[in-house]
Amino acid sequence: MLTVNAYAATSATGPLTPTTIERRDLGPHDVLIDIAFSGICHSDIHTARSEWGATNYPIVVGHEIAGVVREVGAEVTKFAAGDRVGVGCMVDSCRECDNCRKGLEQYCLNGNVGTYGAVDRDGRPTQGGYAQAIVVTEDFVLRIPDGLALDVAAPLLCAGITTYSPLRHWGVGRGSRVAVIGLGGLGHMAVKLAHAMGAEVTVLSQSLKKQEDGLRLGADHYYATGDEETFARLAGSFDVVLNTVSAKIDLDAYLGLLAVDGTLVNVGAPEEPLSVLAFSLIPARRSFAGSMIGGIAETQEMLDFCAEHGLGAEIEVIRAEQINEAYERVLASDVRYRFVIDASTF
Amino acid sequence: MLTVNAYAATSATGPLTPTTIERRDLGPHDVLIDIAFSGICHSDIHTARSEWGATNYPIVVGHEIAGVVREVGAEVTKFAAGDRVGVGCMVDSCRECDNCRKGLEQYCLNGNVGTYGAVDRDGRPTQGGYAQAIVVTEDFVLRIPDGLALDVAAPLLCAGITTYSPLRHWGVGRGSRVAVIGLGGLGHMAVKLAHAMGAEVTVLSQSLKKQEDGLRLGADHYYATGDEETFARLAGSFDVVLNTVSAKIDLDAYLGLLAVDGTLVNVGAPEEPLSVLAFSLIPARRSFAGSMIGGIAETQEMLDFCAEHGLGAEIEVIRAEQINEAYERVLASDVRYRFVIDASTF
Repeated sequence: MLTVNAYAATSATGPLTPTTIERRDLGPHDVLIDIAFSGICHSDIHTARSEWGATNYPIVVGHEIAGVVREVGAEVTKFAAGDRVGVGCMVDSCRECDNCRKGLEQYCLNGNVGTYGAVDRDGRPTQGGYAQAIVVTEDFVLRIPDGLALDVAAPLLCAGITTYSPLRHWGVGRGSRVAVIGLGGLGHMAVKLAHAMGAEVTVLSQSLKKQEDGLRLGADHYYATGDEETFARLAGSFDVVLNTVSAKIDLDAYLGLLAVDGTLVNVGAPEEPLSVLAFSLIPARRSFAGSMIGGIAETQEMLDFCAEHGLGAEIEVIRAEQINEAYERVLASDVRYRFVIDASTF
Repeated sequence: MLTVNAYAATSATGPLTPTTIERRDLGPHDVLIDIAFSGICHSDIHTARSEWGATNYPIVVGHEIAGVVREVGAEVTKFAAGDRVGVGCMVDSCRECDNCRKGLEQYCLNGNVGTYGAVDRDGRPTQGGYAQAIVVTEDFVLRIPDGLALDVAAPLLCAGITTYSPLRHWGVGRGSRVAVIGLGGLGHMAVKLAHAMGAEVTVLSQSLKKQEDGLRLGADHYYATGDEETFARLAGSFDVVLNTVSAKIDLDAYLGLLAVDGTLVNVGAPEEPLSVLAFSLIPARRSFAGSMIGGIAETQEMLDFCAEHGLGAEIEVIRAEQINEAYERVLASDVRYRFVIDASTF
């Protein structure tokens, strides 16, 4: 067992505090990774605070992990010490079900093993990336291409793949008209990725506060959803609308922005039920869909795509002791656009 | 002008009564059709009763029309007197917008011209199929293949294409797992069509009352949705769920029946908003979609498919004076599975 420094939540209401956790001994297929950077995802906050069901404390969250391989198990073939690697939201899956076989491990029919808050195949609870090191089976380790710095790569492992996968799945490319709802951690990556795929990109944000950023990141247009006229002006305009916000939205109004055969994809996860009229869908064969991260092979494809196009997240690097303050700033939408923890400060 | 016998609604609350209406003189591209049979669709009732917005009375409804060409305009090339033909929910569209050019006239960006209750391109209100004859521009007239009797073909022009189009659009074929919610006018056609396409078909009906019929029509399985266990047993089982009922349903429960990448398509049109959780979609990349009839070329394809597979609607032929009684029976779900009016009785 390897003891490593980490930051853990010990209750739904208290702050995250320094601790140590044990990482398992290297199995034949395991990779021991020295974490360099760990992104802060809104899901971390939901889990740390038991907002998505009861969390087992103490818990180390974090699933946007970038680092360097320290050591590999005896039978590991894909990685060697010194390799630059990443770990995202999953650290294993059954590997046998129809979905796993298709490379859709995120939809594993037996439940994928989340990077934190899950039960690993050895029966132990998984602990995430707010730590100095992690041990992960090689099939769930990603290669970070040379062109990508580790700090801006870390958020790609969740925010990047969560937006890349639906854009690809719903066929975004040259000529596509894509709208991105919300310019936050997910949204800013969606803008960069859709732009790099050749789409015409529109940001739909509550206000025009971040307009300059949006255009700089690759958006062609920027509209305030607080302005009633936006919905009339943009009616029937988009092939794909990617909703990255978790707040409840007026779904019928946003569905009205879709062209025939358009799809509104939720990657944000509002807890409250949404209201939808069948008539918002029927007269233009529209769809309302959801998407969750991406498969392992697709995550590698996304990292390679980002390296090729010079895309990383826009980040603010913080020290471990700033995590709790960063959480408050995430909740206040006061981050442009992702906090990344320098793991040397754990 | 041609004066023809018809049945019209003259108010939202009164019965349909015999009347005469004028059909326009044959333009160069028009086809005059002697109607043989006219199906009764639930939409007819909604419109006759002003349930979908205010109707302009008097109105002759009916958009499941089968008959024989009596005469054609000077420049008509596709049809000749004596041809067996049909007319569905549309009698024209702009023909110039992106959707019309793609053969998606039903989603015409300038609004297609409905067979009744719309304004024709000459400025006159359109009047539908509860009549002895109709004049329609040739591009919106369908050919009914020899193998199909006119009476069982009539309902294909709405109930047939409304279910055929989404089954095709969402890729149903051999190996597909399809569930059909509701075994009514639309549902019974969905079962026949999906079965003929090679799918494994399950009917989801409130009770098992029509189970024998459902299996005879081509369903492989039949479950009562009134039985709580149905939803647990069938969780994650279907690629496509086609919802043909207009009543409000528990969308989240039905979405749970979809496999990864599955789609629930509404062709029934409930007026009340539905409630949906993003979490019903996200963890399996599911979609909730809508679909409306089909394009003209696709409607012809559907008729040819039905002829090839020997498929027609299950019908009960009535006389014109039975229309009002038939409406009550439709509302009471007391029809197996479509009323068709013998147009010689108008």
